[in-house]
Amino acid sequence: MKFHVMTLFESIFNSYMSESIMKNAVENNFISLNTYNIRDYSNNKHKKVDDYPFGGGVGMLMTPQPIMDCFYDIKSKLKTKKPKVVYLTPRGRVFNQSVAKEFAKEEEIVFLCGRYEGIDQRVIDEIVTDEISIGDFVLTGGELPALIMIDSISRLIKGVLGKEESFMEESFSNNLLEHDQYTRPRIFEEKEVPQVLLSGNHKLIEEWKLRNSIKNTLLKRPDIIDKKKLDKKELKILRELQKELEK
Amino acid sequence: MKFHVMTLFESIFNSYMSESIMKNAVENNFISLNTYNIRDYSNNKHKKVDDYPFGGGVGMLMTPQPIMDCFYDIKSKLKTKKPKVVYLTPRGRVFNQSVAKEFAKEEEIVFLCGRYEGIDQRVIDEIVTDEISIGDFVLTGGELPALIMIDSISRLIKGVLGKEESFMEESFSNNLLEHDQYTRPRIFEEKEVPQVLLSGNHKLIEEWKLRNSIKNTLLKRPDIIDKKKLDKKELKILRELQKELEK
Repeated sequence: MKFHVMTLFESIFNSYMSESIMKNAVENNFISLNTYNIRDYSNNKHKKVDDYPFGGGVGMLMTPQPIMDCFYDIKSKLKTKKPKVVYLTPRGRVFNQSVAKEFAKEEEIVFLCGRYEGIDQRVIDEIVTDEISIGDFVLTGGELPALIMIDSISRLIKGVLGKEESFMEESFSNNLLEHDQYTRPRIFEEKEVPQVLLSGNHKLIEEWKLRNSIKNTLLKRPDIIDKKKLDKKELKILRELQKELEK
Repeated sequence: MKFHVMTLFESIFNSYMSESIMKNAVENNFISLNTYNIRDYSNNKHKKVDDYPFGGGVGMLMTPQPIMDCFYDIKSKLKTKKPKVVYLTPRGRVFNQSVAKEFAKEEEIVFLCGRYEGIDQRVIDEIVTDEISIGDFVLTGGELPALIMIDSISRLIKGVLGKEESFMEESFSNNLLEHDQYTRPRIFEEKEVPQVLLSGNHKLIEEWKLRNSIKNTLLKRPDIIDKKKLDKKELKILRELQKELEK
């Protein structure tokens, strides 16, 4: 997977990608990330990239020329003829794990990060294939949302996670939240790990995990439970827990 | 507003906070951000912070001791006796602009960023007041979600945004998406700015903006339209546009 990012703040990306799993993914060539500073493409002698909005209004907008020239430069380097070009905006489709899986199938993705009050609409109409929103809140720019997409998409690329970290067990793969987890020491500040996890009885442990996972989902995110994705056993536990919680 | 962050990756925060609006907000003392490296608090001679999960399972968990000692250190420095302690997790309450407003009333907020497969549940039970999720996707750690919260909360702190950038007009303040925006030049690559925006007729311009804003919301995020928040005029436009779109 090759990520290309148009931004006014390249260092935000370089810092994040130099840590942890992302660093390894880049070093092992599972992913690559290239940033392009939109300001470098400005024809203006002061390298200006913003201007006042027509029709009045607060703040400044990003002008078309620097972004378009930046995009033409990226496009000339791409394999894909019609690449996905993502603009991060509260107006976009809401990002979630299914959308991440969809994007993980691409070979190359271009991100456009807006700053100030936004971007001239003609740019969006001309080059953007996907308007994506990370959630219903207002941010200073598209950089954090782009990094969120890059992180979650990268985790789905083969090789990025080791066998140990297989993403199969994580939240949202079966629409249930994770069960509570405990590590050493057995007793910490007088609080003990649940006995069953120390029992060595695998059947009981798996049952506890499943029940705890369903309970967490029921208590914290009942909206994401999709009964169609649950098997017979899971449905039975769900009903039992619903009854218990009603009391 | 004082933000305190417990993390294994301090540099991610320092890089983001050294740019743009966040940088100014810190320099002008509207907000402050202190990061604490959880690893520095580990009693282990190799500064280990993770261990295997009891009951088996993939990956490693963060152990209680380093996090708790880090928290005790932060707490000793806080004014607030019962500070909000936010743990970023897909199991949490979903973050949005209303939650941001709620947190913006606090004086101090502590963030706990998990890595690996998660954190020992006893820590969460003991110190966390708010489990918050940025969205339904899986990420490598809590750092990006914490930055998203810090960014959006900071924008609501008095002084952080200039008069020009007043957040009043932005998406989600009245549950309508922003209208399309245009800046110079009037003609770019043969594409013109909508004539009305150049007309100088303020009444017509405001009407165009409102209609375009409602249209964008209807087309892109019909789920966020809250009719109770719309006035008579807005409701009328909404109905007209619904009819037009049905055709």
